[in-house]
Amino acid sequence: MNWEKNVRKVEPYIPGEQPKRQNIIKLNTNECPYPPAPGVKAALERIQYENFRLYPDANITELSSELAKYYHVNKEQVFVGVGSDDVLAMAFLTFFNSDKPVLFPDITYAFYDVWAELYGIPYKQIPLTDDFTIKSEDYFGENGGIVITNPNAPTGIYKEIGEIEEIIKANPDVVVIVDEAYVDFGGQSCIPLVEKYDNLLVVQTFSKSRSMAGMRIGFAVGQEKIIGYLQDAKFSFNSYTMNQPALAVGVESVRDDAYFKETVGKIINTRERMKVEFKKLGFEMTDSMTNFLFVTHPKVAAADIFNAAREEGIFLRYWNKPRINNYLRITIGTDEEMDTLIDFLKKYLA
Amino acid sequence: MNWEKNVRKVEPYIPGEQPKRQNIIKLNTNECPYPPAPGVKAALERIQYENFRLYPDANITELSSELAKYYHVNKEQVFVGVGSDDVLAMAFLTFFNSDKPVLFPDITYAFYDVWAELYGIPYKQIPLTDDFTIKSEDYFGENGGIVITNPNAPTGIYKEIGEIEEIIKANPDVVVIVDEAYVDFGGQSCIPLVEKYDNLLVVQTFSKSRSMAGMRIGFAVGQEKIIGYLQDAKFSFNSYTMNQPALAVGVESVRDDAYFKETVGKIINTRERMKVEFKKLGFEMTDSMTNFLFVTHPKVAAADIFNAAREEGIFLRYWNKPRINNYLRITIGTDEEMDTLIDFLKKYLA
Repeated sequence: MNWEKNVRKVEPYIPGEQPKRQNIIKLNTNECPYPPAPGVKAALERIQYENFRLYPDANITELSSELAKYYHVNKEQVFVGVGSDDVLAMAFLTFFNSDKPVLFPDITYAFYDVWAELYGIPYKQIPLTDDFTIKSEDYFGENGGIVITNPNAPTGIYKEIGEIEEIIKANPDVVVIVDEAYVDFGGQSCIPLVEKYDNLLVVQTFSKSRSMAGMRIGFAVGQEKIIGYLQDAKFSFNSYTMNQPALAVGVESVRDDAYFKETVGKIINTRERMKVEFKKLGFEMTDSMTNFLFVTHPKVAAADIFNAAREEGIFLRYWNKPRINNYLRITIGTDEEMDTLIDFLKKYLA
Repeated sequence: MNWEKNVRKVEPYIPGEQPKRQNIIKLNTNECPYPPAPGVKAALERIQYENFRLYPDANITELSSELAKYYHVNKEQVFVGVGSDDVLAMAFLTFFNSDKPVLFPDITYAFYDVWAELYGIPYKQIPLTDDFTIKSEDYFGENGGIVITNPNAPTGIYKEIGEIEEIIKANPDVVVIVDEAYVDFGGQSCIPLVEKYDNLLVVQTFSKSRSMAGMRIGFAVGQEKIIGYLQDAKFSFNSYTMNQPALAVGVESVRDDAYFKETVGKIINTRERMKVEFKKLGFEMTDSMTNFLFVTHPKVAAADIFNAAREEGIFLRYWNKPRINNYLRITIGTDEEMDTLIDFLKKYLA
């Protein structure tokens, strides 16, 4: 059993619960309540199962080209992976090989420290301010790389693109990853900045705003050189990561911009309405620019609300972690789902 | 531009050419010439695009259970990944963390040294004998892990399971990976040995014998402990690797064993017939137990045959590498495709 001493032992990330129960309201994993674009349905119907016998396009030509067109960059500036987790994990492996610590906030996407541990990358978690904002100056010192989620999760707070640019500009000698998983819900993307900064890698996902968590599609945009390094690493890990259906439906999602904007618009409207409703119920919250709210109640413990809602079949997200253990992250569902939640909370808090 | 000095620079694996031309005979990447099981078509048609908005089952419950049933193990003994490359890359990362070199043959699947380089794992390539066989004794010394492809690629040579067991038994302190990408074409799997050896990890793929290279499904079988470590690493890398269509169609492929055996049987028959035909043309070859032949001609250079066939729209695989630079790897296609190849060779060699 000596082989066990050479096992890379890790504390795995624990994803949000995926309950098997029917008729629940699932507001715990930031999925989109609306289906993908109609073109996705058509693309799915066009798939020929006979072709599954052939390898997919390792170069992801069509999907990369479509994304490039959408974001006004070249195809060689786009890297596609199995969800943004795959893209980010590959970026950590490729770019963070310094002895100096990689910097990211203490409260942010919980996978960053897991990847750093997995690859043995030194890292330093920089505390957010008391109101959960990222202080730019904290990222101006010596470091081995920077990861900023914008808007940040689970706080939902958006940092102005000018402030992000200051961080990128102050760190020309390391790669700065801007994780924009939630940027479509009202933020401004840093993608236009890649033209100016060769050390910038912007990562996005189809899982939230494009309603395709189930298809596992994420991507990164950067200058050709930084994307080239990422491609080399990917081709050293697994040449064929994206299967045929993912490639086929991904393209159609990007093509239907009207549907995309409509879906995102509906979620923003519901979110803003919910901010008002939650305040009426006494909740305090950040000014979320994402598809979730990050709320706390001055009188009732978040864990209690979480458990009570769960018993009603309403799943929210709660972390028993320092600084945020009295907060709930609540995904924006349909208006109907959110109204059911509000009705429950009204009764529960009464 | 100093960020470049901390980039993990790698020499990526170059997959076989995927020509865009129509009406070609593609015998260069070991794809199956027959479509997947009919149940795969039905499963594809049942997929609801609306559900793409939800995350897939991170625990891959149904597919793991189906594979477990098929191989007479428990669900907790099965690990599923994005093709066997994903499974193997994850296994290298998880189990090969010793200062001693990981051992594998000098002529074998060309990704092993790429993964070792990617992760900074020391490794030693053990020369095959002059007739391309793996000498068991070469793997009895001190090492940091062992990878054996059985049947080996691109040689096609199968090593008796008893000999593989000797290697596993001689190395209780390291993990022994047996890569069985081609085992369904006439070999015997080591999966029954996992009961006896906690250091054994058997890896297989849906890409060849199950006609689903385009869906990216691979898996590993081992004792619960070794699979558990692999799951922890996977959940530290990307919780949701398998998208909804892959999970849905994978299950149906495993369920239809009659179709599977029929497809594999057809390929074996064609392969054996081809061995006779190639010998008639003066070729020498290994006794392949895979879905490809590994051939050389005493009078005509492999590179010349490769190029001439390519001009006729027949794609074969050739590596300009020491020891095998006068060999061709030829995937077994349909009988019709193979007869076209034989007709071409008859004319070309005349």
